[in-house]
Amino acid sequence: MTLLTDDVRAAITAGRLAHLTTLEPDGSPQVSLVWVGIEDDELVVGHLASGRKIRNLEADPRVAVSIETDRTNPMGLQEYLVIRGTARITPGGAPELLQRLAEVYLGPGVTFPPMDAPPPGNVIRITPTRVGGVGPWAG
Amino acid sequence: MTLLTDDVRAAITAGRLAHLTTLEPDGSPQVSLVWVGIEDDELVVGHLASGRKIRNLEADPRVAVSIETDRTNPMGLQEYLVIRGTARITPGGAPELLQRLAEVYLGPGVTFPPMDAPPPGNVIRITPTRVGGVGPWAG
Repeated sequence: MTLLTDDVRAAITAGRLAHLTTLEPDGSPQVSLVWVGIEDDELVVGHLASGRKIRNLEADPRVAVSIETDRTNPMGLQEYLVIRGTARITPGGAPELLQRLAEVYLGPGVTFPPMDAPPPGNVIRITPTRVGGVGPWAG
Repeated sequence: MTLLTDDVRAAITAGRLAHLTTLEPDGSPQVSLVWVGIEDDELVVGHLASGRKIRNLEADPRVAVSIETDRTNPMGLQEYLVIRGTARITPGGAPELLQRLAEVYLGPGVTFPPMDAPPPGNVIRITPTRVGGVGPWAG
């Protein structure tokens, strides 16, 4: 059974930034904010460079992804999603994914990345193992 | 020298939720979204119950805090703050802190927590060791 119910998919693909936490070599948390999409029941994040996040994930694939929503619960508190999961990295495809997500995050017709020959980069693919937070998806 | 420059303080206290990452006993990242304030060069978070976050911090005080802003950079990307630091826990004071932060997050005149005799709880106090992200505070 997929953890990506319709409510969860809607929150992931609403164009809000995803806070992606990886683990540094010393075990401390490292966070960056990224565009996120869904492909085949995995969360996907495009990365043009092979930076710290990629190196961290190669050493330890455990991640957390948190995403705010524009909804509030009956107590007036903002709802949000926290997804824990395991990441794998596939080479190439980052410019194409970023172009697709730019239409969501920046607006229709935008060209991104704004360069002539972007490097192929990597795609981070996250299999959710647990979904929580505040909202209809909360345990 | 404090890492909490005027720009950083303004982003922390603007009423945006803070994504607080702690480390589980197995080292994996655990995230919850919290209200945050500043007291004496520390970030402060009020916690009524002594839940998983408190237990995690007692075992490993390393945290990351990420906060979105309403600003965009010249490339059109949303600016955000990532603070890494070390947390300590002080008993009591959570209802008073939450009441102060409710005026920022929910609006003036709101009563929070909405109960007659809230437990004293704990305050999580985070000393920043590094500030980054996308914005004027980026390295």
